[in-house]
Amino acid sequence: MTPARVAELAQGVARGEVRAAARVCRLVDDRAPGHDEVLRALWPTTGRAWVIGVTGNPGAGKSTLVDRLIGAFRASGEKVGVVAVDPTSPFTGGAILGDRIRMQRHFEDDGVFIRSIATRGALGGLSRSAADLVRVLDAWGAGVVLVETVGVGQDELEVTRTAHTTLVVASPGLGDEIQAIKAGLLECADVFAVNKADRDGADATVRDLELMIALGGEALVAAARRGLGHGAAAFRPGAPTEARDAAEREWTPPIVKCVATTGVGLPALMSALGAHHRWSRETPLGEARRREREERAIADFLTATVTDAWLRRHGASVEAAARRVVRRETDPWAEAAALSRHDPE
Amino acid sequence: MTPARVAELAQGVARGEVRAAARVCRLVDDRAPGHDEVLRALWPTTGRAWVIGVTGNPGAGKSTLVDRLIGAFRASGEKVGVVAVDPTSPFTGGAILGDRIRMQRHFEDDGVFIRSIATRGALGGLSRSAADLVRVLDAWGAGVVLVETVGVGQDELEVTRTAHTTLVVASPGLGDEIQAIKAGLLECADVFAVNKADRDGADATVRDLELMIALGGEALVAAARRGLGHGAAAFRPGAPTEARDAAEREWTPPIVKCVATTGVGLPALMSALGAHHRWSRETPLGEARRREREERAIADFLTATVTDAWLRRHGASVEAAARRVVRRETDPWAEAAALSRHDPE
Repeated sequence: MTPARVAELAQGVARGEVRAAARVCRLVDDRAPGHDEVLRALWPTTGRAWVIGVTGNPGAGKSTLVDRLIGAFRASGEKVGVVAVDPTSPFTGGAILGDRIRMQRHFEDDGVFIRSIATRGALGGLSRSAADLVRVLDAWGAGVVLVETVGVGQDELEVTRTAHTTLVVASPGLGDEIQAIKAGLLECADVFAVNKADRDGADATVRDLELMIALGGEALVAAARRGLGHGAAAFRPGAPTEARDAAEREWTPPIVKCVATTGVGLPALMSALGAHHRWSRETPLGEARRREREERAIADFLTATVTDAWLRRHGASVEAAARRVVRRETDPWAEAAALSRHDPE
Repeated sequence: MTPARVAELAQGVARGEVRAAARVCRLVDDRAPGHDEVLRALWPTTGRAWVIGVTGNPGAGKSTLVDRLIGAFRASGEKVGVVAVDPTSPFTGGAILGDRIRMQRHFEDDGVFIRSIATRGALGGLSRSAADLVRVLDAWGAGVVLVETVGVGQDELEVTRTAHTTLVVASPGLGDEIQAIKAGLLECADVFAVNKADRDGADATVRDLELMIALGGEALVAAARRGLGHGAAAFRPGAPTEARDAAEREWTPPIVKCVATTGVGLPALMSALGAHHRWSRETPLGEARRREREERAIADFLTATVTDAWLRRHGASVEAAARRVVRRETDPWAEAAALSRHDPE
């Protein structure tokens, strides 16, 4: 790609042109030659969007809730970007069963930009592509970028780690759902929504979450002391928090009941999200947490970029070494040591 | 760790001593100094176990089914290893809600060795720790190692990629479950179990899976042609397969109905698993597929090992670079280029 074309695309995105943004998103999807030059050209115009991660088990009603949030942010005049991430599918956005069809009404709205993503491939490829698309939508002028993930695995944790605010959606009636919302997710949850709150069991789900926050909080403090997980230290709800000065107080994730299909509870949810946003912008501790997340995301990007470059140069050697190991001509440690010689200092 | 201690531990494991195996598993969990020397000493005694991955959504009844499978393999005289992987929890084996308590009756049996794992940390850390534990249980003399994962995300895909046979467990009544068993999982599924088959909707779940295999198969062939995913090419069910010679025929995953709580359907499930095992040992194509999976797993190990070594040397530089980027003193691409200079050739 010529420098002139890179500049042209970047300027188009920065002017808020939908076509230019769509073009750059496709370059990013394909990891096409020149996509990183364009991202680099966009860099000075990024860093303004509020990035909200939305995660939770399949069936919790995330897509419907995201649809409502788009509507609410549009009503307040914000341009909205959506990155829908589905790591279990090699096809764009769960196309097989088309569960994202509900969002389609926003496709008519020039103030909404929706991209699906399912890149798997290399280590960390998914969270990196998501982060790249977030940057494009940020540069395009989205005041809010919603990043929706399909499940609650490590991928999702990594994706939400790049968000400023993470919304975890639960719903009553999915028996083992709470069981699956384990401590890893607690660690990154800033707001909980209990969707489908008109169904039996909503209050029980709220109580389960409260219990889990209380149990998980203590356990996470212990984990942080043992040095597990950089984010764990950010989560210390309950008594120890109360004792501290408000300015130094950690964030305790509120639990909001809502019904995405009717819109009940949406104002309370918007308000809870907004409160976290203000906390992370306007208090010293909130700012520190936000900076930690951003630094972690950038460090992951840097490591992945260097690893990719190494793999491009030495991928064939890695494969040849793997074949020797599988034929039992050598062992993995001997081959790893030999390969590390390709990476001196 | 002294070479004598390494040899002593490795010999203890190879003799089938439970205490030695437990000691080595702890070293692996902690990634303690010397753990890789012990793994390396164990290497010549590995490669004999049949590794079966068991995955599927929370609530499908995986733990109960794994408990049944342990019993069935024990009844046939095999020593059995179990690695229970829970990537969403920083705590061992979902300890908060203790859902693995059902397996406890096997703790009394010296021919069964169960380990939980929840290591997160670095890129690919989970699948690597799981692979290491599988090697320990293999060296300890397990004829079968069951690797149970909690969900259906990318982690699980990576973990099951190291298995010889992957069992995907579904169950009726979880509305969006099928939706979550997306193509990524189809790609690695060798056998499907529809558990809780005495409930309403079991036949519908079987039909959904059949439909998904038919749809997904075609789509995966298309994906393979576009070069997406190394495993995709291995999956071509339906008509094109029938036309070929039996010796060259790809594996089409059977769907087996069962009720883990009562044991109904277990013989059919054991038989389906055994049929895949024989296919992967006794047909040229099956052998080729097995070798591909093993080579992929070893290549991942080698890449992760080299990356880890690089991060140990340059982690502080990465963090300093990330701080500069977040302060907007520089951009991520400039820093990545500078860091790549630490990795010449």
